[in-house]
Amino acid sequence: MKLIRFGKAREEKPGVIINEKYYDVSAFVNDYDEKFFGGDGLEKLEKQIENAALPQVDSSVRLGAPLARPSKIICVGLNYKDHAHETNAPIPKEPILFFKSTSAIVGPNDDLIIPKNSKKTDWEVELAVVIGKKATYVEEKNAFEHIAGYVLHNDYSEREFQLERNGQWVKGKSCDTFAPIGPFIATKNEIADVHNLRLWLTVNGQKMQDGNTSNLIFNVPFIVSYISQFMTLLPGDVITTGTPAGVGLGQKPEPWYLNPGDMVELGIEGLGSSKQSVKAFQL
Amino acid sequence: MKLIRFGKAREEKPGVIINEKYYDVSAFVNDYDEKFFGGDGLEKLEKQIENAALPQVDSSVRLGAPLARPSKIICVGLNYKDHAHETNAPIPKEPILFFKSTSAIVGPNDDLIIPKNSKKTDWEVELAVVIGKKATYVEEKNAFEHIAGYVLHNDYSEREFQLERNGQWVKGKSCDTFAPIGPFIATKNEIADVHNLRLWLTVNGQKMQDGNTSNLIFNVPFIVSYISQFMTLLPGDVITTGTPAGVGLGQKPEPWYLNPGDMVELGIEGLGSSKQSVKAFQL
Repeated sequence: MKLIRFGKAREEKPGVIINEKYYDVSAFVNDYDEKFFGGDGLEKLEKQIENAALPQVDSSVRLGAPLARPSKIICVGLNYKDHAHETNAPIPKEPILFFKSTSAIVGPNDDLIIPKNSKKTDWEVELAVVIGKKATYVEEKNAFEHIAGYVLHNDYSEREFQLERNGQWVKGKSCDTFAPIGPFIATKNEIADVHNLRLWLTVNGQKMQDGNTSNLIFNVPFIVSYISQFMTLLPGDVITTGTPAGVGLGQKPEPWYLNPGDMVELGIEGLGSSKQSVKAFQL
Repeated sequence: MKLIRFGKAREEKPGVIINEKYYDVSAFVNDYDEKFFGGDGLEKLEKQIENAALPQVDSSVRLGAPLARPSKIICVGLNYKDHAHETNAPIPKEPILFFKSTSAIVGPNDDLIIPKNSKKTDWEVELAVVIGKKATYVEEKNAFEHIAGYVLHNDYSEREFQLERNGQWVKGKSCDTFAPIGPFIATKNEIADVHNLRLWLTVNGQKMQDGNTSNLIFNVPFIVSYISQFMTLLPGDVITTGTPAGVGLGQKPEPWYLNPGDMVELGIEGLGSSKQSVKAFQL
Protein backbone atom coordinates (compact mmCIF):
# COMPACT_ATOMS: atom_id res chain seq x y z
CA MET A 1 0.00 0.00 0.00
CA LYS A 2 0.88 3.63 -0.35
CA LEU A 3 -0.26 5.73 2.61
CA ILE A 4 -0.93 9.46 2.45
CA ARG A 5 -2.41 12.08 4.74
CA PHE A 6 -4.31 14.90 3.06
CA GLY A 7 -6.07 18.15 3.94
CA LYS A 8 -5.24 21.26 5.91
CA ALA A 9 -2.21 21.31 8.20
CA ARG A 10 -2.97 19.71 11.59
CA GLU A 11 -6.33 18.44 10.27
CA GLU A 12 -5.02 15.82 7.86
CA LYS A 13 -7.04 12.69 7.15
CA PRO A 14 -5.56 9.31 6.30
CA GLY A 15 -5.74 8.06 2.72
CA VAL A 16 -4.19 5.66 0.26
CA ILE A 17 -2.95 5.88 -3.31
CA ILE A 18 -4.32 3.26 -5.70
CA ASN A 19 -3.35 3.46 -9.39
CA GLU A 20 -2.09 7.02 -8.82
CA LYS A 21 -5.46 8.18 -7.47
CA TYR A 22 -6.02 9.36 -3.91
CA TYR A 23 -8.68 7.75 -1.69
CA ASP A 24 -9.98 8.65 1.77
CA VAL A 25 -9.73 5.81 4.34
CA SER A 26 -10.76 7.85 7.38
CA ALA A 27 -13.82 5.57 7.71
CA PHE A 28 -11.41 2.80 8.76
CA VAL A 29 -8.41 4.57 10.28
CA ASN A 30 -8.21 7.34 12.85
CA ASP A 31 -4.64 8.28 11.95
CA TYR A 32 -1.34 6.72 10.93
CA ASP A 33 0.11 6.83 14.41
CA GLU A 34 1.76 4.63 17.02
CA LYS A 35 -1.52 2.85 17.75
CA PHE A 36 -2.16 2.18 14.06
CA PHE A 37 1.29 0.78 13.25
CA GLY A 38 1.62 -1.04 16.57
CA GLY A 39 -1.86 -2.58 16.36
CA ASP A 40 -1.46 -4.38 13.04
CA GLY A 41 -3.20 -1.43 11.38
CA LEU A 42 -1.55 -2.06 8.01
CA GLU A 43 -2.81 -5.64 7.76
CA LYS A 44 -6.31 -4.63 8.90
CA LEU A 45 -6.50 -1.70 6.50
CA GLU A 46 -5.41 -3.83 3.58
CA LYS A 47 -8.32 -6.19 4.20
CA GLN A 48 -10.80 -3.40 4.93
CA ILE A 49 -10.21 -1.57 1.68
CA GLU A 50 -10.00 -4.66 -0.51
CA ASN A 51 -13.60 -4.54 -1.70
CA ALA A 52 -14.65 -1.18 -0.29
CA ALA A 53 -15.91 1.69 -2.44
CA LEU A 54 -13.54 4.37 -1.13
CA PRO A 55 -14.30 8.08 -1.59
CA GLN A 56 -11.86 9.52 -4.11
CA VAL A 57 -9.98 12.70 -3.21
CA ASP A 58 -8.98 15.34 -5.75
CA SER A 59 -5.31 15.09 -6.63
CA SER A 60 -4.87 18.83 -6.09
CA VAL A 61 -5.37 18.38 -2.32
CA ARG A 62 -2.53 19.39 0.01
CA LEU A 63 -0.56 16.43 1.31
CA GLY A 64 0.63 16.38 4.91
CA ALA A 65 3.41 14.17 6.18
CA PRO A 66 2.06 10.64 5.70
CA LEU A 67 2.18 9.81 9.40
CA ALA A 68 1.13 11.46 12.65
CA ARG A 69 3.82 13.01 14.82
CA PRO A 70 6.09 10.12 15.87
CA SER A 71 7.74 9.80 19.28
CA LYS A 72 11.06 10.56 17.59
CA ILE A 73 13.02 11.07 14.38
CA ILE A 74 16.41 9.38 14.64
CA CYS A 75 18.94 10.45 12.03
CA VAL A 76 22.02 8.57 10.90
CA GLY A 77 24.88 10.95 10.08
CA LEU A 78 27.54 10.59 7.37
CA ASN A 79 26.16 7.30 6.06
CA TYR A 80 27.40 7.71 2.46
CA LYS A 81 31.17 7.76 1.86
CA ASP A 82 30.99 10.49 -0.79
CA HIS A 83 29.10 12.78 1.63
CA ALA A 84 31.60 12.13 4.44
CA HIS A 85 34.41 13.00 2.00
CA GLU A 86 32.81 16.24 0.77
CA THR A 87 32.37 17.49 4.34
CA ASN A 88 35.94 16.47 5.31
CA ALA A 89 34.61 14.03 7.91
CA PRO A 90 36.11 10.58 8.52
CA ILE A 91 34.14 7.49 7.49
CA PRO A 92 32.29 6.47 10.67
CA LYS A 93 33.32 3.17 12.26
CA GLU A 94 29.82 2.79 13.68
CA PRO A 95 26.67 4.82 12.96
CA ILE A 96 26.51 8.42 14.16
CA LEU A 97 23.06 9.06 15.61
CA PHE A 98 21.28 12.32 16.31
CA PHE A 99 17.70 13.45 16.75
CA LYS A 100 15.59 15.93 14.86
CA SER A 101 12.70 17.60 16.65
CA THR A 102 9.32 16.25 15.51
CA SER A 103 8.02 19.85 15.60
CA ALA A 104 10.01 20.30 12.36
CA ILE A 105 7.72 17.95 10.41
CA VAL A 106 5.72 19.40 7.50
CA GLY A 107 4.05 18.09 4.38
CA PRO A 108 6.19 17.12 1.37
CA ASN A 109 5.35 20.20 -0.68
CA ASP A 110 5.02 22.79 2.09
CA ASP A 111 7.31 25.82 2.07
CA LEU A 112 10.76 25.65 3.62
CA ILE A 113 11.12 28.65 5.91
CA ILE A 114 14.69 29.88 6.37
CA PRO A 115 15.06 30.39 10.13
CA LYS A 116 15.65 33.80 11.65
CA ASN A 117 19.39 34.62 11.65
CA SER A 118 20.18 31.73 9.31
CA LYS A 119 22.79 32.09 6.60
CA LYS A 120 23.52 28.41 5.95
CA THR A 121 20.28 26.51 5.34
CA ASP A 122 21.19 23.34 3.45
CA TRP A 123 19.39 20.36 1.86
CA GLU A 124 19.78 16.57 2.30
CA VAL A 125 17.70 14.04 0.36
CA GLU A 126 17.29 10.91 2.48
CA LEU A 127 15.57 7.55 2.58
CA ALA A 128 13.56 7.29 5.80
CA VAL A 129 12.36 4.10 7.46
CA VAL A 130 9.05 3.92 9.36
CA ILE A 131 8.99 1.52 12.31
CA GLY A 132 6.05 -0.89 12.41
CA LYS A 133 6.74 -2.87 15.55
CA LYS A 134 8.40 -1.91 18.84
CA ALA A 135 12.12 -2.66 18.66
CA THR A 136 14.41 -3.24 21.65
CA TYR A 137 17.67 -5.15 21.22
CA VAL A 138 16.62 -6.46 17.82
CA GLU A 139 19.01 -8.69 15.89
CA GLU A 140 19.96 -7.63 12.39
CA LYS A 141 18.43 -10.77 10.88
CA ASN A 142 15.04 -9.89 12.41
CA ALA A 143 15.15 -6.16 11.73
CA PHE A 144 12.87 -6.15 8.68
CA GLU A 145 10.04 -7.52 10.84
CA HIS A 146 10.09 -4.20 12.70
CA ILE A 147 9.77 -2.03 9.59
CA ALA A 148 6.41 -0.79 8.28
CA GLY A 149 7.68 0.98 5.19
CA TYR A 150 9.77 3.70 3.59
CA VAL A 151 9.33 7.37 2.83
CA LEU A 152 11.15 10.30 1.20
CA HIS A 153 12.61 12.89 3.57
CA ASN A 154 14.54 16.14 3.18
CA ASP A 155 16.75 16.50 6.27
CA TYR A 156 17.17 20.29 6.10
CA SER A 157 20.14 21.45 8.14
CA GLU A 158 21.39 24.84 9.25
CA ARG A 159 25.16 24.37 9.09
CA GLU A 160 26.12 27.26 11.35
CA PHE A 161 23.63 26.15 14.02
CA GLN A 162 24.76 22.53 13.57
CA LEU A 163 28.53 22.94 13.47
CA GLU A 164 29.56 26.37 14.75
CA ARG A 165 27.24 26.94 17.72
CA ASN A 166 28.83 24.77 20.39
CA GLY A 167 28.36 21.07 19.95
CA GLN A 168 25.60 18.56 19.21
CA TRP A 169 24.00 18.66 15.77
CA VAL A 170 20.36 18.77 16.94
CA LYS A 171 20.58 22.57 17.09
CA GLY A 172 20.84 22.81 13.31
CA LYS A 173 18.36 20.07 12.47
CA SER A 174 15.21 21.01 14.34
CA CYS A 175 13.94 24.35 13.01
CA ASP A 176 10.29 24.53 11.95
CA THR A 177 9.70 23.14 8.40
CA PHE A 178 13.08 21.34 8.42
CA ALA A 179 11.48 17.89 8.03
CA PRO A 180 9.31 17.60 4.92
CA ILE A 181 8.20 13.94 4.85
CA GLY A 182 6.37 12.26 1.99
CA PRO A 183 4.54 12.25 -0.41
CA PHE A 184 3.62 8.72 0.75
CA ILE A 185 4.79 5.80 2.86
CA ALA A 186 5.37 2.76 0.66
CA THR A 187 4.81 -0.33 2.73
CA LYS A 188 7.73 -2.74 2.84
CA ASN A 189 6.29 -5.08 0.20
CA GLU A 190 6.14 -2.25 -2.36
CA ILE A 191 9.93 -1.88 -2.46
CA ALA A 192 11.71 -4.86 -4.02
CA ASP A 193 15.20 -3.86 -2.84
CA VAL A 194 15.58 -0.97 -0.42
CA HIS A 195 19.33 -1.09 -1.02
CA ASN A 196 19.08 -0.27 -4.70
CA LEU A 197 17.09 2.94 -4.96
CA ARG A 198 18.25 6.01 -6.81
CA LEU A 199 17.80 9.27 -4.87
CA TRP A 200 18.27 12.78 -6.23
CA LEU A 201 17.77 16.44 -5.42
CA THR A 202 17.75 19.61 -7.52
CA VAL A 203 17.88 23.31 -6.58
CA ASN A 204 16.22 25.55 -9.16
CA GLY A 205 16.38 22.67 -11.60
CA GLN A 206 20.11 22.10 -11.17
CA LYS A 207 21.03 18.55 -10.14
CA MET A 208 22.83 18.72 -6.77
CA GLN A 209 22.51 15.19 -5.39
CA ASP A 210 22.29 11.95 -7.35
CA GLY A 211 23.02 8.84 -5.35
CA ASN A 212 21.87 5.32 -4.72
CA THR A 213 21.01 3.54 -1.49
CA SER A 214 23.36 0.77 -2.62
CA ASN A 215 26.10 3.09 -1.34
CA LEU A 216 24.86 3.26 2.27
CA ILE A 217 27.77 2.55 4.62
CA PHE A 218 25.42 0.98 7.19
CA ASN A 219 22.40 -0.66 5.62
CA VAL A 220 18.80 -0.58 6.79
CA PRO A 221 18.59 -3.75 8.94
CA PHE A 222 21.95 -2.95 10.53
CA ILE A 223 20.75 0.56 11.43
CA VAL A 224 17.48 -0.65 12.95
CA SER A 225 19.30 -3.28 14.99
CA TYR A 226 22.03 -0.82 16.01
CA ILE A 227 19.67 1.92 17.22
CA SER A 228 17.62 -0.63 19.16
CA GLN A 229 20.71 -1.39 21.29
CA PHE A 230 20.60 2.18 22.66
CA MET A 231 16.89 2.99 22.83
CA THR A 232 13.47 1.53 22.17
CA LEU A 233 12.01 2.24 18.75
CA LEU A 234 8.26 2.67 18.86
CA PRO A 235 5.72 2.00 16.09
CA GLY A 236 5.55 5.04 13.83
CA ASP A 237 9.06 6.24 14.72
CA VAL A 238 11.09 7.54 11.79
CA ILE A 239 14.74 6.70 11.08
CA THR A 240 16.35 8.77 8.37
CA THR A 241 19.32 7.00 6.89
CA GLY A 242 21.71 9.73 5.74
CA THR A 243 22.38 11.71 2.57
CA PRO A 244 24.68 11.19 -0.42
CA ALA A 245 27.14 13.82 -1.70
CA GLY A 246 26.01 17.13 -3.15
CA VAL A 247 24.86 19.21 -0.19
CA GLY A 248 25.54 22.97 -0.06
CA LEU A 249 28.25 22.52 2.57
CA GLY A 250 30.18 20.28 0.17
CA GLN A 251 30.21 22.63 -2.86
CA LYS A 252 33.60 23.62 -4.34
CA PRO A 253 35.32 26.04 -4.40
CA GLU A 254 32.90 27.52 -1.85
CA PRO A 255 29.87 26.14 0.01
CA TRP A 256 26.59 27.85 -0.89
CA TYR A 257 23.17 27.73 0.71
CA LEU A 258 19.48 28.36 0.09
CA ASN A 259 17.91 31.78 -0.42
CA PRO A 260 14.31 32.93 -0.49
CA GLY A 261 12.84 32.25 -3.92
CA ASP A 262 14.78 29.02 -4.47
CA MET A 263 12.94 25.80 -5.33
CA VAL A 264 14.14 22.44 -4.02
CA GLU A 265 12.91 19.22 -5.62
CA LEU A 266 13.85 15.71 -4.61
CA GLY A 267 12.85 12.11 -5.09
CA ILE A 268 13.61 8.46 -4.50
CA GLU A 269 12.86 5.64 -6.90
CA GLY A 270 9.56 4.04 -5.83
CA LEU A 271 8.89 6.71 -3.18
CA GLY A 272 7.79 9.62 -5.35
CA SER A 273 9.03 13.19 -5.28
CA SER A 274 8.46 16.39 -3.30
CA LYS A 275 9.26 20.05 -3.72
CA GLN A 276 9.73 22.90 -1.31
CA SER A 277 9.59 26.57 -2.15
CA VAL A 278 12.11 28.49 -0.02
CA LYS A 279 10.72 31.46 1.91
CA ALA A 280 12.21 34.01 4.28
CA PHE A 281 11.16 33.94 7.93
CA GLN A 282 8.50 36.51 8.77
CA LEU A 283 6.94 37.20 12.11
CA MET B 1 -0.60 23.21 42.39
CA LYS B 2 1.36 20.00 42.52
CA LEU B 3 0.52 17.60 39.71
CA ILE B 4 1.02 13.84 39.89
CA ARG B 5 0.09 10.86 37.76
CA PHE B 6 -0.63 7.64 39.63
CA GLY B 7 -1.43 3.99 38.95
CA LYS B 8 0.00 1.22 36.81
CA ALA B 9 2.57 2.05 34.12
CA ARG B 10 0.91 3.26 30.91
CA GLU B 11 -2.47 3.47 32.71
CA GLU B 12 -1.69 6.42 34.98
CA LYS B 13 -4.43 8.83 36.02
CA PRO B 14 -3.93 12.53 36.73
CA GLY B 15 -3.98 13.73 40.30
CA VAL B 16 -2.90 16.55 42.58
CA ILE B 17 -1.18 16.78 45.95
CA ILE B 18 -2.93 18.94 48.56
CA ASN B 19 -1.45 19.11 52.08
CA GLU B 20 0.71 16.10 51.26
CA LYS B 21 -2.31 13.93 50.37
CA TYR B 22 -2.96 12.55 46.88
CA TYR B 23 -6.26 13.27 45.09
CA ASP B 24 -7.69 11.94 41.81
CA VAL B 25 -8.64 14.65 39.29
CA SER B 26 -9.43 12.35 36.39
CA ALA B 27 -13.03 13.60 36.52
CA PHE B 28 -11.72 16.95 35.21
CA VAL B 29 -8.58 16.13 33.27
CA ASN B 30 -7.91 13.48 30.64
CA ASP B 31 -4.15 13.66 31.02
CA TYR B 32 -1.34 16.16 31.63
CA ASP B 33 -0.41 16.40 27.97
CA GLU B 34 0.13 18.95 25.20
CA LYS B 35 -3.60 19.64 24.96
CA PHE B 36 -3.90 20.18 28.71
CA PHE B 37 -0.96 22.56 29.08
CA GLY B 38 -1.64 24.33 25.79
CA GLY B 39 -5.36 24.76 26.49
CA ASP B 40 -5.08 26.68 29.77
CA GLY B 41 -5.61 23.38 31.57
CA LEU B 42 -3.78 24.55 34.69
CA GLU B 43 -6.01 27.59 35.20
CA LYS B 44 -9.16 25.56 34.53
CA LEU B 45 -8.14 22.76 36.87
CA GLU B 46 -7.34 25.17 39.66
CA LYS B 47 -10.89 26.54 39.49
CA GLN B 48 -12.50 23.12 39.04
CA ILE B 49 -10.95 21.61 42.14
CA GLU B 50 -11.38 24.67 44.36
CA ASN B 51 -14.58 23.51 46.00
CA ALA B 52 -14.76 19.95 44.68
CA ALA B 53 -14.79 16.89 46.92
CA LEU B 54 -11.92 15.03 45.26
CA PRO B 55 -11.48 11.28 45.74
CA GLN B 56 -8.40 10.66 47.88
CA VAL B 57 -5.79 8.18 46.67
CA ASP B 58 -3.71 6.02 48.98
CA SER B 59 -0.19 7.38 49.35
CA SER B 60 1.26 3.92 48.69
CA VAL B 61 0.14 4.11 45.06
CA ARG B 62 2.80 3.93 42.33
CA LEU B 63 3.61 7.33 40.83
CA GLY B 64 4.22 7.66 37.12
CA ALA B 65 6.01 10.57 35.51
CA PRO B 66 3.74 13.56 36.25
CA LEU B 67 3.11 14.30 32.58
CA ALA B 68 2.17 12.34 29.47
CA ARG B 69 4.88 11.62 26.93
CA PRO B 70 6.03 15.03 25.63
CA SER B 71 7.01 15.76 22.04
CA LYS B 72 10.62 16.06 23.24
CA ILE B 73 13.06 16.22 26.14
CA ILE B 74 15.71 18.85 25.46
CA CYS B 75 18.77 18.65 27.68
CA VAL B 76 21.28 21.38 28.43
CA GLY B 77 24.80 19.99 28.80
CA LEU B 78 27.57 21.19 31.12
CA ASN B 79 25.46 23.94 32.66
CA TYR B 80 27.25 23.99 36.06
CA LYS B 81 30.90 25.10 36.15
CA ASP B 82 31.91 22.48 38.73
CA HIS B 83 30.49 19.70 36.54
CA ALA B 84 32.26 21.02 33.44
CA HIS B 85 35.53 21.06 35.44
CA GLU B 86 35.14 17.53 36.82
CA THR B 87 34.61 16.12 33.32
CA ASN B 88 37.54 18.14 31.90
CA ALA B 89 35.21 20.00 29.54
CA PRO B 90 35.51 23.74 28.82
CA ILE B 91 32.86 26.12 30.17
CA PRO B 92 30.38 26.47 27.29
CA LYS B 93 30.14 29.89 25.63
CA GLU B 94 26.55 29.18 24.73
CA PRO B 95 24.28 26.31 25.82
CA ILE B 96 25.03 22.80 24.58
CA LEU B 97 21.75 21.12 23.61
CA PHE B 98 20.97 17.47 23.09
CA PHE B 99 17.87 15.32 23.11
CA LYS B 100 16.87 12.36 25.23
CA SER B 101 14.38 9.86 23.81
CA THR B 102 10.95 10.15 25.42
CA SER B 103 10.79 6.34 25.45
CA ALA B 104 13.24 6.56 28.38
CA ILE B 105 10.64 8.17 30.67
CA VAL B 106 9.57 6.25 33.80
CA GLY B 107 8.04 7.05 37.14
CA PRO B 108 10.18 8.70 39.83
CA ASN B 109 10.58 5.55 41.91
CA ASP B 110 10.67 2.92 39.18
CA ASP B 111 13.74 0.71 38.80
CA LEU B 112 16.74 1.88 36.81
CA ILE B 113 17.66 -0.92 34.42
CA ILE B 114 21.33 -1.04 33.45
CA PRO B 115 21.33 -1.50 29.67
CA LYS B 116 22.69 -4.61 28.01
CA ASN B 117 26.46 -4.26 27.48
CA SER B 118 26.68 -1.22 29.76
CA LYS B 119 29.63 -0.73 32.09
CA LYS B 120 29.29 3.01 32.69
CA THR B 121 25.75 3.87 33.78
CA ASP B 122 25.92 7.20 35.60
CA TRP B 123 23.54 9.54 37.48
CA GLU B 124 22.72 13.26 37.07
CA VAL B 125 20.25 15.10 39.34
CA GLU B 126 18.63 17.92 37.35
CA LEU B 127 16.01 20.60 37.57
CA ALA B 128 13.58 20.18 34.65
CA VAL B 129 11.27 22.83 33.23
CA VAL B 130 7.84 21.98 31.81
CA ILE B 131 6.66 24.18 28.95
CA GLY B 132 3.14 25.61 29.30
CA LYS B 133 2.78 27.62 26.13
CA LYS B 134 4.18 27.14 22.63
CA ALA B 135 7.50 28.97 22.32
CA THR B 136 9.08 30.15 19.05
CA TYR B 137 11.68 32.97 19.08
CA VAL B 138 10.73 33.95 22.61
CA GLU B 139 12.59 36.84 24.24
CA GLU B 140 14.28 36.20 27.56
CA LYS B 141 12.10 38.77 29.34
CA ASN B 142 8.95 36.88 28.26
CA ALA B 143 10.26 33.37 28.84
CA PHE B 144 8.53 32.73 32.18
CA GLU B 145 5.15 33.16 30.45
CA HIS B 146 5.93 29.97 28.54
CA ILE B 147 6.72 27.86 31.61
CA ALA B 148 4.08 25.70 33.33
CA GLY B 149 6.23 24.45 36.19
CA TYR B 150 9.24 22.52 37.42
CA VAL B 151 10.03 18.90 38.17
CA LEU B 152 12.84 16.70 39.47
CA HIS B 153 14.68 14.61 36.87
CA ASN B 154 17.53 12.09 36.93
CA ASP B 155 19.30 12.34 33.55
CA TYR B 156 20.84 8.86 33.59
CA SER B 157 23.73 8.60 31.14
CA GLU B 158 25.77 5.71 29.80
CA ARG B 159 29.21 7.30 29.45
CA GLU B 160 30.68 4.78 27.03
CA PHE B 161 27.62 5.04 24.74
CA GLN B 162 27.67 8.84 25.11
CA LEU B 163 31.35 9.58 24.68
CA GLU B 164 33.18 6.58 23.20
CA ARG B 165 30.77 5.29 20.57
CA ASN B 166 31.27 7.78 17.75
CA GLY B 167 29.75 11.18 18.30
CA GLN B 168 26.50 12.77 19.50
CA TRP B 169 25.49 12.25 23.11
CA VAL B 170 21.94 11.02 22.44
CA LYS B 171 23.25 7.46 22.19
CA GLY B 172 24.09 7.39 25.90
CA LYS B 173 21.04 9.29 27.12
CA SER B 174 18.09 7.40 25.68
CA CYS B 175 18.07 3.87 27.09
CA ASP B 176 14.83 2.62 28.64
CA THR B 177 14.33 3.83 32.25
CA PHE B 178 17.00 6.57 31.82
CA ALA B 179 14.49 9.39 32.51
CA PRO B 180 12.78 9.10 35.90
CA ILE B 181 10.65 12.24 36.20
CA GLY B 182 8.82 13.37 39.31
CA PRO B 183 7.40 12.88 41.94
CA PHE B 184 5.32 15.96 40.98
CA ILE B 185 5.26 19.04 38.79
CA ALA B 186 5.21 22.15 40.95
CA THR B 187 3.46 24.89 39.03
CA LYS B 188 5.50 28.07 38.57
CA ASN B 189 3.78 29.94 41.43
CA GLU B 190 4.84 27.23 43.94
CA ILE B 191 8.53 28.02 43.51
CA ALA B 192 9.55 31.43 44.87
CA ASP B 193 12.97 31.50 43.21
CA VAL B 194 13.87 28.80 40.72
CA HIS B 195 17.46 30.05 40.79
CA ASN B 196 17.97 29.26 44.45
CA LEU B 197 17.08 25.60 44.91
CA ARG B 198 19.36 23.06 46.54
CA LEU B 199 19.64 19.79 44.61
CA TRP B 200 21.32 16.61 45.81
CA LEU B 201 21.83 12.94 45.00
CA THR B 202 23.05 9.96 47.00
CA VAL B 203 24.16 6.46 46.00
CA ASN B 204 23.61 3.86 48.73
CA GLY B 205 23.22 6.72 51.20
CA GLN B 206 26.53 8.37 50.27
CA LYS B 207 26.18 12.00 49.17
CA MET B 208 27.49 12.31 45.61
CA GLN B 209 25.93 15.56 44.36
CA ASP B 210 25.02 18.62 46.41
CA GLY B 211 24.51 21.78 44.38
CA ASN B 212 22.28 24.77 43.97
CA THR B 213 20.49 26.14 40.93
CA SER B 214 22.04 29.50 41.78
CA ASN B 215 25.16 28.09 40.08
CA LEU B 216 23.53 27.49 36.70
CA ILE B 217 25.75 28.99 33.98
CA PHE B 218 22.72 29.73 31.78
CA ASN B 219 19.58 30.43 33.79
CA VAL B 220 16.04 29.23 33.13
CA PRO B 221 14.62 32.15 31.09
CA PHE B 222 17.81 32.36 29.03
CA ILE B 223 17.61 28.64 28.23
CA VAL B 224 13.95 28.78 27.20
CA SER B 225 14.61 31.80 24.98
CA TYR B 226 17.78 30.24 23.55
CA ILE B 227 16.22 26.90 22.62
CA SER B 228 13.24 28.67 21.03
CA GLN B 229 15.65 30.28 18.50
CA PHE B 230 16.44 26.81 17.10
CA MET B 231 13.15 24.92 17.41
CA THR B 232 9.57 25.31 18.56
CA LEU B 233 8.86 24.26 22.14
CA LEU B 234 5.42 22.72 22.53
CA PRO B 235 3.21 22.67 25.64
CA GLY B 236 4.27 19.76 27.84
CA ASP B 237 7.81 19.64 26.45
CA VAL B 238 10.53 19.07 29.05
CA ILE B 239 13.81 20.99 29.28
CA THR B 240 16.33 19.55 31.69
CA THR B 241 18.81 22.15 32.79
CA GLY B 242 22.05 20.29 33.55
CA THR B 243 23.69 18.67 36.54
CA PRO B 244 26.13 19.92 39.21
CA ALA B 245 29.41 18.18 40.09
CA GLY B 246 29.52 14.72 41.62
CA VAL B 247 28.65 12.30 38.81
CA GLY B 248 30.40 8.94 38.50
CA LEU B 249 32.47 10.12 35.54
CA GLY B 250 33.96 12.88 37.71
CA GLN B 251 35.09 10.71 40.65
CA LYS B 252 38.77 10.80 41.64
CA PRO B 253 41.12 9.03 41.42
CA GLU B 254 38.96 6.83 39.19
CA PRO B 255 35.43 7.21 37.78
CA TRP B 256 32.99 4.63 39.07
CA TYR B 257 29.49 3.65 37.96
CA LEU B 258 26.27 1.98 39.06
CA ASN B 259 25.88 -1.73 39.69
CA PRO B 260 22.82 -3.92 40.24
CA GLY B 261 21.71 -3.64 43.85
CA ASP B 262 22.64 0.04 44.20
CA MET B 263 20.06 2.56 45.38
CA VAL B 264 20.01 6.10 43.99
CA GLU B 265 18.10 8.84 45.82
CA LEU B 266 17.80 12.45 44.75
CA GLY B 267 15.84 15.60 45.45
CA ILE B 268 15.39 19.29 44.82
CA GLU B 269 14.16 21.82 47.37
CA GLY B 270 10.43 22.32 46.77
CA LEU B 271 10.23 19.54 44.19
CA GLY B 272 10.37 16.47 46.43
CA SER B 273 12.59 13.43 46.10
CA SER B 274 12.73 10.18 44.18
CA LYS B 275 14.64 6.93 44.39
CA GLN B 276 15.61 4.29 41.88
CA SER B 277 16.69 0.77 42.66
CA VAL B 278 19.36 -0.35 40.18
CA LYS B 279 18.68 -3.64 38.39
CA ALA B 280 20.53 -5.67 35.77
CA PHE B 281 19.03 -5.98 32.32
CA GLN B 282 17.16 -9.23 31.80
CA LEU B 283 15.44 -10.46 28.66
